Amino acid sequence: MLTLLCSLLCTNQPNILLIMVDDLGWRDTSVRNGPPEDPTQAQLHTPHIQRLADEGMRLDQAYASACVCTPTRASLLTGAAPARHHITWWTLYHDRDTSGKHPTLRAPDWNKEGLQPSPDLLPERLRRAGYRTIHVGKAHWGAHGTPGSDPLQLGFDENIAGHGSGAPGSYRGIHRFKNAKSTTDFSKSSVWDVPGLEAYHDRDLFLTEALAIEASRSMEAAVASGEPFFLHFAPYAVHTPIMANPRWIDEAEGLAPVEARYVSLVRSVDAAVGVLLARLDELGMTNNTLVIFTSDNGAVSGYAGRPANRNAPLRGSKSSPYEGGHRVPLIARWPQHIPAGASSNAMVVTHDLHPTLLRWVGLDAEERSVPDGLDISSILLGQRDQLERFVVWHKPHRTGGQSGRFMPCTAIRMGDEKLIAWHTEQRFELYNLQKDPGEQNDLSKTHPERVGALSRVLADWCREAGAQMSVDQERGEPVPWFDAW
Amino acid sequence: MLTLLCSLLCTNQPNILLIMVDDLGWRDTSVRNGPPEDPTQAQLHTPHIQRLADEGMRLDQAYASACVCTPTRASLLTGAAPARHHITWWTLYHDRDTSGKHPTLRAPDWNKEGLQPSPDLLPERLRRAGYRTIHVGKAHWGAHGTPGSDPLQLGFDENIAGHGSGAPGSYRGIHRFKNAKSTTDFSKSSVWDVPGLEAYHDRDLFLTEALAIEASRSMEAAVASGEPFFLHFAPYAVHTPIMANPRWIDEAEGLAPVEARYVSLVRSVDAAVGVLLARLDELGMTNNTLVIFTSDNGAVSGYAGRPANRNAPLRGSKSSPYEGGHRVPLIARWPQHIPAGASSNAMVVTHDLHPTLLRWVGLDAEERSVPDGLDISSILLGQRDQLERFVVWHKPHRTGGQSGRFMPCTAIRMGDEKLIAWHTEQRFELYNLQKDPGEQNDLSKTHPERVGALSRVLADWCREAGAQMSVDQERGEPVPWFDAW
Repeated sequence: MLTLLCSLLCTNQPNILLIMVDDLGWRDTSVRNGPPEDPTQAQLHTPHIQRLADEGMRLDQAYASACVCTPTRASLLTGAAPARHHITWWTLYHDRDTSGKHPTLRAPDWNKEGLQPSPDLLPERLRRAGYRTIHVGKAHWGAHGTPGSDPLQLGFDENIAGHGSGAPGSYRGIHRFKNAKSTTDFSKSSVWDVPGLEAYHDRDLFLTEALAIEASRSMEAAVASGEPFFLHFAPYAVHTPIMANPRWIDEAEGLAPVEARYVSLVRSVDAAVGVLLARLDELGMTNNTLVIFTSDNGAVSGYAGRPANRNAPLRGSKSSPYEGGHRVPLIARWPQHIPAGASSNAMVVTHDLHPTLLRWVGLDAEERSVPDGLDISSILLGQRDQLERFVVWHKPHRTGGQSGRFMPCTAIRMGDEKLIAWHTEQRFELYNLQKDPGEQNDLSKTHPERVGALSRVLADWCREAGAQMSVDQERGEPVPWFDAW
Repeated sequence: MLTLLCSLLCTNQPNILLIMVDDLGWRDTSVRNGPPEDPTQAQLHTPHIQRLADEGMRLDQAYASACVCTPTRASLLTGAAPARHHITWWTLYHDRDTSGKHPTLRAPDWNKEGLQPSPDLLPERLRRAGYRTIHVGKAHWGAHGTPGSDPLQLGFDENIAGHGSGAPGSYRGIHRFKNAKSTTDFSKSSVWDVPGLEAYHDRDLFLTEALAIEASRSMEAAVASGEPFFLHFAPYAVHTPIMANPRWIDEAEGLAPVEARYVSLVRSVDAAVGVLLARLDELGMTNNTLVIFTSDNGAVSGYAGRPANRNAPLRGSKSSPYEGGHRVPLIARWPQHIPAGASSNAMVVTHDLHPTLLRWVGLDAEERSVPDGLDISSILLGQRDQLERFVVWHKPHRTGGQSGRFMPCTAIRMGDEKLIAWHTEQRFELYNLQKDPGEQNDLSKTHPERVGALSRVLADWCREAGAQMSVDQERGEPVPWFDAW
């Protein structure tokens, strides 16, 4: 069957458009993705993302590799879980630990440099397979001052507006995508200044609009030159600063100001998706392009001015081990291959995309091998409902700043069960996601045998992956593995 | 009526797409532009330029301001005839006279620096009127080493690939638009290297394709930001080097190699026009955009490997005072304003476009005043058939190199009559273009009274304009005015 699949898929290398939105929650589009209903979803209007869902497959149990940006993005490019690549937190400068301070623990010696050049990165592999590799928008793979801060060093032929920072100073061209407080004084530069895009400075253009125009241009050039393309479109939005796009803000009337601005950001992403899909249509490339739409972690909830229920019905926020931190939208469209209007409850994770894309590009098993990601082709083609697998999220960091309540932890989901292990107290929580998607009923006390079983799987996997545990400050030693708690 | 016209036209500033092709002859598209038929025109296939003609007005007696590039381009931006702005020849370095050597005459102290910054240039005026001003492609207004070599100094907000040179080293991305002889050695740089466009280097893209993609992007950004735009699209083609576009070369089977390559260049221009028109359609801007299609001088004929009849049925070549040197295609489309499928025999010239565009943009008489160009709105709107005017071409230069047979001269057309004044022998030729479009029957001997009348008009106008005559090397003095011959 594998041979058949390849002969079907690999005769003509498809283009790949991977839309990696930032901080977009599972319910942050108008696409309905399974019960229970969330009335606030009605505020969102994302017709272009809806089009993708109508023409492709919606994965309702899709996860980001991590609960913050850099680790997930590094997992996409490496095919490895963050516990293995040790980029377990977000990067900025090569020597700065962005973890928050904790009273008794500290972060391990994690990879603060972030992702660095390697021939095994996804864009390098795609480039070797003949692809034009294009990065547009937020990169945030490698720290400033390291080669990895430049997408051109990571296998991309083009880099538009990407560097070592994970947020824009401003979303507006009138601010030159820098300081949101001035349209005239640009004398001070900051690490948050979006690089490039000078042609859009001092103009009434939103960052998502500029990026969509640039990305369309790059797709058009690749098609004109006869190259298949891999476009990694990462629009910075809807990351903070939660700024209004003036073109959409009126649609969000009646909402609290921050929520109205957020809705306008989401709408901006949808409009950008619309521009890209329209360009594919115009170029005659819709049928020959695999489009993936996803996010790098769950929505911000309970800080940055946002209410605490922004991932409802899921619990938690970006930065937390609950479902709201990891569950993300994932839509895949490839006409005549992926069934239209389909949905799946298969558990998949960002780093699965790496081997899956490479398989569809026609690379053989060795060329597409990765440590952790699974080939989910059979799920996307509607041939299987579920994979035998578990997913681990490892976060040996306290979050800093406003979101400092998010403590070091590791979590595993296997089947319907989810075990969360809190490093500080060496304490577990256990949930049944099928019965309790909102993670309200901790079963750890009533089902100690399940805690034991899952904690052993988790510990074994973490040891094999070389995961770095939080360090006990007093003893100067790592917190013990989960099967010793 | 003027007020009515303005209230009709100026309520909503139209976008302006001015396509300034290079060296494209009057018959170098598949658009039929009046008798006599030319069988070689059947080799050309330019459906997108044809679409413009079908949807707009064809001007069959349109002239370039000069018989070579720089003077015509400077006339567009200044609204002045070359005799007045003294950029009477093509520029390269600020201190280099590119004129050919002549046994008895030399060029006057013409403006070898080329066009320099001024608030009265067309793009400056359009920018003041609220336009986003975009230059794409060949600039060739100011010499290298002067501010005018940079379109950003001439009123353009954006400059893509324009500088002080008038030809590309190569049309191909695999050559990085530099040396056409190598796809690997780029160590030597030259004044003919096309600046910018790095994203297209080492790729199978033709210069016209890259420029069309870039121009489309800039139009899209202007529309997204709500700015009306002025796009000056000058595709370098079909200037030498006469290189094949591999995508079209097979269509020219059976032609001599140079002609086949030339046809593929023309087809490349047409394809670029197609990309721009399609983008206007997609942006919903077709009805609100004035499109002008024209060329900066007649086709190369009798040198650069091309046969001597390439402007047939017209006589002469780029660089000569015969009709083949100046007559150019001119098509204007503005749906619901300019009648569709119309044609006109009004005598118009490149520098007319300057005040005409500014009038339609809504500028008042003072803001659009120019020394020589006439407002041809009434022609384009189908309200008048002809203007009371004459046109003068002044070329106090011998052409250099391969085309050294083109000698210093001045010419005037008034009504159907054309007088050519050769500076060397102080000798006239007179033609009746209505009866003799190919300028075969010199009437100067049989109609001395017409020679006298026209030479007086010519001399009066040249004196008023401050034209610089060729200089007699022996005497060190200018050749006398035409009414003293």
